[in-house]
Amino acid sequence: MLFHVRMDVNLPLDMPADVASEIKAREKAYSQDLQRSGKWRHIWRLAGEYANISIFDVESNAELHDILTALPLFPYMNMSVTPLCRHPSSVRDGDA
Amino acid sequence: MLFHVRMDVNLPLDMPADVASEIKAREKAYSQDLQRSGKWRHIWRLAGEYANISIFDVESNAELHDILTALPLFPYMNMSVTPLCRHPSSVRDGDA
Amino acid sequence: MLFHVRMDVNLPLDMPADVASEIKAREKAYSQDLQRSGKWRHIWRLAGEYANISIFDVESNAELHDILTALPLFPYMNMSVTPLCRHPSSVRDGDA
Amino acid sequence: MLFHVRMDVNLPLDMPADVASEIKAREKAYSQDLQRSGKWRHIWRLAGEYANISIFDVESNAELHDILTALPLFPYMNMSVTPLCRHPSSVRDGDA
Amino acid sequence: MLFHVRMDVNLPLDMPADVASEIKAREKAYSQDLQRSGKWRHIWRLAGEYANISIFDVESNAELHDILTALPLFPYMNMSVTPLCRHPSSVRDGDA
Amino acid sequence: MLFHVRMDVNLPLDMPADVASEIKAREKAYSQDLQRSGKWRHIWRLAGEYANISIFDVESNAELHDILTALPLFPYMNMSVTPLCRHPSSVRDGDA
Amino acid sequence: MLFHVRMDVNLPLDMPADVASEIKAREKAYSQDLQRSGKWRHIWRLAGEYANISIFDVESNAELHDILTALPLFPYMNMSVTPLCRHPSSVRDGDA
Amino acid sequence: MLFHVRMDVNLPLDMPADVASEIKAREKAYSQDLQRSGKWRHIWRLAGEYANISIFDVESNAELHDILTALPLFPYMNMSVTPLCRHPSSVRDGDA
Amino acid sequence: MLFHVRMDVNLPLDMPADVASEIKAREKAYSQDLQRSGKWRHIWRLAGEYANISIFDVESNAELHDILTALPLFPYMNMSVTPLCRHPSSVRDGDA
Amino acid sequence: MLFHVRMDVNLPLDMPADVASEIKAREKAYSQDLQRSGKWRHIWRLAGEYANISIFDVESNAELHDILTALPLFPYMNMSVTPLCRHPSSVRDGDA
Repeated sequence: MLFHVRMDVNLPLDMPADVASEIKAREKAYSQDLQRSGKWRHIWRLAGEYANISIFDVESNAELHDILTALPLFPYMNMSVTPLCRHPSSVRDGDA
Repeated sequence: MLFHVRMDVNLPLDMPADVASEIKAREKAYSQDLQRSGKWRHIWRLAGEYANISIFDVESNAELHDILTALPLFPYMNMSVTPLCRHPSSVRDGDA
Repeated sequence: MLFHVRMDVNLPLDMPADVASEIKAREKAYSQDLQRSGKWRHIWRLAGEYANISIFDVESNAELHDILTALPLFPYMNMSVTPLCRHPSSVRDGDA
Repeated sequence: MLFHVRMDVNLPLDMPADVASEIKAREKAYSQDLQRSGKWRHIWRLAGEYANISIFDVESNAELHDILTALPLFPYMNMSVTPLCRHPSSVRDGDA
Repeated sequence: MLFHVRMDVNLPLDMPADVASEIKAREKAYSQDLQRSGKWRHIWRLAGEYANISIFDVESNAELHDILTALPLFPYMNMSVTPLCRHPSSVRDGDA
Repeated sequence: MLFHVRMDVNLPLDMPADVASEIKAREKAYSQDLQRSGKWRHIWRLAGEYANISIFDVESNAELHDILTALPLFPYMNMSVTPLCRHPSSVRDGDA
Repeated sequence: MLFHVRMDVNLPLDMPADVASEIKAREKAYSQDLQRSGKWRHIWRLAGEYANISIFDVESNAELHDILTALPLFPYMNMSVTPLCRHPSSVRDGDA
Repeated sequence: MLFHVRMDVNLPLDMPADVASEIKAREKAYSQDLQRSGKWRHIWRLAGEYANISIFDVESNAELHDILTALPLFPYMNMSVTPLCRHPSSVRDGDA
Repeated sequence: MLFHVRMDVNLPLDMPADVASEIKAREKAYSQDLQRSGKWRHIWRLAGEYANISIFDVESNAELHDILTALPLFPYMNMSVTPLCRHPSSVRDGDA
Repeated sequence: MLFHVRMDVNLPLDMPADVASEIKAREKAYSQDLQRSGKWRHIWRLAGEYANISIFDVESNAELHDILTALPLFPYMNMSVTPLCRHPSSVRDGDA
């Protein structure tokens, strides 16, 4: 089941650089594990913004919630979640 | 080059059913041609709404404009266009 | 899987009264069938508005989409869909 | 009498973890007491957000106010209150 | 129990003057009956707008809904409903 | 001359409790003096929010400004001011 | 007593040109009478928009309401009214 | 050439009173110099808010920018600038 | 003096194609005359929308108003006007 | 390929003046290098605001992202990015 999630990141301006680097490194590892498992289907940057648009493929709303709230950057993010479904015009099996 | 486009459709309430069907059939054929060509990379429905979220892969802003404004449903749509770029955490070659 | 849906109804001011009555009768029958089946878990009116807030319990985003877009009043509604999940403080089995 | 309440929680980023845990524990106990008494009829999480949607069943606006402002997390919440009433299409006695 | 209601009126520009007059006359009579009964506690105009702010004193959300949706101008109004309660600083018995 | 004022209070989360208590006590005394004088005609709480809706009866915009900006809580409030006038349907002398 | 009013005009696209001209002529005459009387203190156009910003000097909210709702263009306008008062830094007697 | 400017002031809650007084005194002197020179044509307070609406008469956009950004309170203000022009219905020479 | 103008076009869905073509042809000729005169400095399309962003170089707000309101498409446009000035970092003489 | 970018700057009120000066100096040098290279086509100030509107000419969304996020002021800016394309009415070769 697919969900569209926009994540906007707002790190505090006074966060020490090494703290920020460490959180971002954990975020990257966490994201890549989920991408390899197929749960985090797509991730793109928004040009010019510290934000991403992602597509998740999960079993349930609850699984989505657990994945998102465990993000190392979660306390610094605004989340916007939209449930998707297959478009009848889609020709692409991978988008179901 | 990737773009995220949200399209919301608002057909006039008094549009005759056969006119609506004919426009939607042309829209579907047009969309599927572009999907097969690789220009229209993804299309998903928003659950509960007459709207879609799509990812386009085009050469330029101008090509995106030409594709979108030629949609048979274009006169009845609100478009929201966001330029994307590859996310440094992405592990998926197809998202570049 | 639970979804929160707000539906705002806007009937055209010039819709004949008997047409409106017929659509509303079909809407009511359709809604009550789904309530009895357990798919449409709750429905409440918003005091002073022609709108409702409903809770659906469905298998997937796609099933939710099919239920909502088949509503007789769908062409006259604005929909706002929010995916829910069980709250860890909830003591009520029926809210899972 | 039923009310729909959306609560969005914004804990300060610099709140010590043990302070946060203690407030959340009191919040949970407080909520569960009210759920067991029947005043707090439903509570659901919003997938991907630190927020809930709840249904309260109270005697009056004043009782609702007293319940909400006594929440241990109240100083960190944005509240949105909407009065509900029974929907004429509802088949469920418990939603009156 | 008190409710604050803002009503904004939007009559269609092509409504015949006598139809408008007839609806407004019924609206006024209906409002004055409810004012005399004590249900419609206050009504004020917003300077420069076709809108009012009113205070209702009703038994329940359901009674408020029935009063508002029976307004002759209801199909032409946007309603905004806010539940009120007595302010602890109030010195006025009539505002409870 | 009547004005509708909505006041939303946002006390800093780190304000010491005794400072907050002292300001609120002064606010209450100030408000009650003005209520007894007839200048502050009504005050109601918004259920579930730290906010009030008030009706003022003053000689001029300037007098309203002086009253509002002298509120002990003024530095912590957002104000929304709307000029009112008597509604032609009002049956209540006190609402003129 | 001074009020700031922004008026945005939206004439129906299908209003006959002579009807529009006649309404605008009456609007101009009405406005100029009030300007000469001193009630309508200032009027300016917004560059590039069919809108004006005006300053009124009236005895009361009620007088402002009567002036604005009697505008020939009133049914086609959105009004935004803001009460003003003399600024303590003003050096200009005419702005009191 | 005339411009309408709305300025909303937000002083930090922890600014020492003498610092605030000193800035406001400089602001007042600066404003009155410009009023006397004819550049700052009008200034009014918004009733109940720490905000003003002003009319400037300047040679160019650049001159307006220089005047506004040199305000002692500029770092604490939100500015909203609207270009004005003479209204064809205006009877007042001073509003050109 | 430079102004940034965003124009969004909304032609009525039932405007005959030849009427639309004729208005657009006049719009294009009008625009190109002003571009050649140097008054309309730049014009760009927004990708995927029936809208443009333009830069005008005019003597005054009044000249801008006259140019914009004389656009053949003006009755079908929403205009958003922002006054610009030279940026101190600009290295380009043509942007003054 | 052209992009329209609006940048709003919000420096923290407590940033030391020499730190701010140093960042602004680096920002200016960085901007002027890009202007000379042709990547940063235009930059204008918004009259009365600490903000600019710029036009970039880049090879791709990714290049735009790299340029914007490397701005010394980027952590203090809100960015709004809009893809542009040549307008069919444009007579100016430089706007392609």
